[in-house]
Amino acid sequence: MSADTEVPEIERAGFVERAIVRHRGDSSTPAFDQVAEEIPVALVFNGISHVVMMATPRDLEAFAHGFALTEGVVASAAAIFDCEVFLRDDSAEVAMTIAQEDFVRLKDRRRALTGRSGCGVCGIDSLELLDLRPEALPPPVIAVDLPQALAKAAAGLRAHQALMAATGGVHAAAWCTPQGEIVHVFEDIGRHNGLDKLIGHLALQGVDLRRGFVFLSSRGSYELARKVARMRVPLLATISAPSSLAIRIATEAGMKLVGFCRQDAFVDYTPHISL
Amino acid sequence: MSADTEVPEIERAGFVERAIVRHRGDSSTPAFDQVAEEIPVALVFNGISHVVMMATPRDLEAFAHGFALTEGVVASAAAIFDCEVFLRDDSAEVAMTIAQEDFVRLKDRRRALTGRSGCGVCGIDSLELLDLRPEALPPPVIAVDLPQALAKAAAGLRAHQALMAATGGVHAAAWCTPQGEIVHVFEDIGRHNGLDKLIGHLALQGVDLRRGFVFLSSRGSYELARKVARMRVPLLATISAPSSLAIRIATEAGMKLVGFCRQDAFVDYTPHISL
Repeated sequence: MSADTEVPEIERAGFVERAIVRHRGDSSTPAFDQVAEEIPVALVFNGISHVVMMATPRDLEAFAHGFALTEGVVASAAAIFDCEVFLRDDSAEVAMTIAQEDFVRLKDRRRALTGRSGCGVCGIDSLELLDLRPEALPPPVIAVDLPQALAKAAAGLRAHQALMAATGGVHAAAWCTPQGEIVHVFEDIGRHNGLDKLIGHLALQGVDLRRGFVFLSSRGSYELARKVARMRVPLLATISAPSSLAIRIATEAGMKLVGFCRQDAFVDYTPHISL
Repeated sequence: MSADTEVPEIERAGFVERAIVRHRGDSSTPAFDQVAEEIPVALVFNGISHVVMMATPRDLEAFAHGFALTEGVVASAAAIFDCEVFLRDDSAEVAMTIAQEDFVRLKDRRRALTGRSGCGVCGIDSLELLDLRPEALPPPVIAVDLPQALAKAAAGLRAHQALMAATGGVHAAAWCTPQGEIVHVFEDIGRHNGLDKLIGHLALQGVDLRRGFVFLSSRGSYELARKVARMRVPLLATISAPSSLAIRIATEAGMKLVGFCRQDAFVDYTPHISL
């Protein structure tokens, strides 16, 4: 990060407006939707970038303090001598100065773990190493009647969620035909794990991932869009909301991303991508 | 992991039964509840433990294949020559043999990142380094009338979720008085980030974390219970379901964990812990 791009934190709303198309029954309405912002936030201790978290760019000073405490980087807030937030459009960095003894312990731990603490992004510990530029997908080889296919998938998913019915605590990832017929469903406490189970199963079966779509019971956040785009699946549909970064990944990859999928409605977050 | 404890995968249900107490209005009923299983799963490539994911122990061969593909560890499933799943009660390991060129690239990447790929657990890359044993909390210094306090918190949360109202895509973490009065709320696309923002803010304000409780709009999974227990908060309440590992962490720490909190009902997952 060059010094001239650094700007002190100016509190942001935490959401951005995106041009979308709202579909309900046979009608479709262009509109603007408010989307939760998700950006990579690097946490830097004594000049060493420690971890990158995908977070909503608000209250980042509190966030960095909390992370340092709940992950045991420092024993108390008094060991954080200084905390500066640099917030840019697409990323942020929080530079903290912590007590030397905590920093030494952190360095030792990092060495022992060959990694770092915290539910970070994809093992990345600095913004420079973050891969946010997906390869462009090839032209689609299937045609999807979105309202029909999504209605069918949304109507069918619940019957496949056995573990959800038992526990109320897991997410489902489904593979659908272009017509919205659900072919495979995998469940997991982690939505990204459910997706990985699905993709792994499809790969083991030799299924052509260009010839169907992924339907998730969860929100659509960065890592899900990134994983699905990497597999060249042309369409990612989710039951809940997407994040700003998921929309960006999908747009750059040329992958269609739809959210809030119901039997009679959905929101198209990539209206310029056809399928 | 010693070889004699290794057992091949036997498909599990993905949930476990736990003794709970169901509260509704003035009544409380001991019962058994089905809880989504969450265990650490180490993914090992060519003998090197790469990452530990918290996952539901089903379909782990598919999971490992999917992870390797969606995270770009291998370019195709054909580069995975062998995949063995060793599933124990509390953890699992999936040992994969991948093509030499992919393994070399992975090693180079690990060196560059001082870490590894994937939304892993707390920067841990092998099961041995996982810290699942929280320190015991000190005896509580507050008394909480759970039905009353949780009803009040559950009734009050929505009004504080401004970002959720705008976007439908974020979680909230609230700090409550022992009476259930909501004092602070932070929102984030990541539930653990919302919690960290809350804890950081409380620490900056010098709030005594033994004298209130955390109320989350999300499920209660491992990392949330671990973070809250580390801060010695006596009670974690969530709107949705907990995981098996969150219950274990809470039980071992002596932290009260309740889930499915509604205005007129909640489920106590740690009935032997009083507050």
